[in-house]
Amino acid sequence: VSAQVVGIFGTGLIGGSIGLRLRAAGTRAIGYDADAQALDEARRVGAIDEAVTHEELYAQADTIVIAVHLDGTLSEIARLSARPPERVQLIVDVASVKRPVCAAAERLARFVATHPMAGSERSGAAAARADLFESRTWAYVPSAGAGLDERARSFIASLGGVPFAIGAEEHDRIVAFTSHVPQLLAWAYADQARERFGDACEPLAGAAARELLRLGRSEMTMWREILRANRANVARELRAFIRRLDRESEVPPAVR
Amino acid sequence: VSAQVVGIFGTGLIGGSIGLRLRAAGTRAIGYDADAQALDEARRVGAIDEAVTHEELYAQADTIVIAVHLDGTLSEIARLSARPPERVQLIVDVASVKRPVCAAAERLARFVATHPMAGSERSGAAAARADLFESRTWAYVPSAGAGLDERARSFIASLGGVPFAIGAEEHDRIVAFTSHVPQLLAWAYADQARERFGDACEPLAGAAARELLRLGRSEMTMWREILRANRANVARELRAFIRRLDRESEVPPAVR
Repeated sequence: VSAQVVGIFGTGLIGGSIGLRLRAAGTRAIGYDADAQALDEARRVGAIDEAVTHEELYAQADTIVIAVHLDGTLSEIARLSARPPERVQLIVDVASVKRPVCAAAERLARFVATHPMAGSERSGAAAARADLFESRTWAYVPSAGAGLDERARSFIASLGGVPFAIGAEEHDRIVAFTSHVPQLLAWAYADQARERFGDACEPLAGAAARELLRLGRSEMTMWREILRANRANVARELRAFIRRLDRESEVPPAVR
Repeated sequence: VSAQVVGIFGTGLIGGSIGLRLRAAGTRAIGYDADAQALDEARRVGAIDEAVTHEELYAQADTIVIAVHLDGTLSEIARLSARPPERVQLIVDVASVKRPVCAAAERLARFVATHPMAGSERSGAAAARADLFESRTWAYVPSAGAGLDERARSFIASLGGVPFAIGAEEHDRIVAFTSHVPQLLAWAYADQARERFGDACEPLAGAAARELLRLGRSEMTMWREILRANRANVARELRAFIRRLDRESEVPPAVR
């Protein structure tokens, strides 16, 4: 079941990249964003066919992608749970933590919680790329319905992503280590680079340093919500990592 | 002054990549490696025109690249200092720390200490790539002679590298942070991934996690010598980084 019209709620980097990819494949993408400038930017860069109102989005779309920050995602899910949209066949979100989302969406029909393992230190539709999800894992939390899950998998595959089924708790436990801790490392690393070396680091940065410095430029707004929502997992993995590094720094490198 | 024949002492990943690049540009590259298998591999993958003996290398080459691990680099420099080669116009090394190299090479004429900011978690000529140094910083420590430095810069540029002049002390202080600490982070990260998550990390790894896991597969042999040689700088930067992370883990993510 391929969607005829996809409605993108939140036309930032992720929503914009989804729109670009859909439109490249000939699928109609409409978009709404509470931020009029963000919505206009998405239209300007060709990420959506049309900017619509919040009401029009749900009235016209077959598939809805909620692509706003975590707090906004939770509010929208609460709103939809109270007044379920009639026309829509599939609703997915793309937030980086899945436990709070799944808990909030417990009574929302036709919803599948998902998380594309792709992003950028940049934000906004101007940084969107049609190939952002190409061959990247796109996690989803299996719902109660096999037909609904198949619909979600097809949608993910249509965007170039590789569908990956995982439970919400396990997802959050693993991404704490594979995504959230690296973000904290990156901020600490970028801070240390700036304070101790200024710009002198850049030319001598190896691949890992370049990646940490790049990630260290990520804006904190979005991350603050993610880290708060996943704080127990993040704190546990970060503390374990620090203990491990501590052992390394006590043992002189010579005898490693 | 473009070299007619380049002699590569140590035909591993770096030496092999230098050879591939030189030969692609029509420059003759001859090679020697104390490990007969490594030398044979370099010849098989086309990284050198000819495998020669240690004596032939210095008798036939205009430029010599010492591309072995740090300890081997220091021994070769000591040997050359005692009995300087007559024919050779330029000798460079490629080791990751520069202070010990520059100290050892104090009485060696026509020598310039260099360090290409490129590498791989793989080793050996089979992993060599002609474009390994393309547009990458290639640091060098300015010597006493302007003509000699110009020769080194030309050689670096001929390999696709971007020559970058820096003092030996400053180089070692900076790479401790931009290269050596990230290697320690990567090993700790890869260990934690393996012990706590097994293979479950891979599909959910973001860009930074992938880079750390990749780097975490680097062999320790080469690194042990580098970390020992630069231990004061590495320990200082690693401890500062741990203190910074510690502060992050004490402050709940919510209030960051």
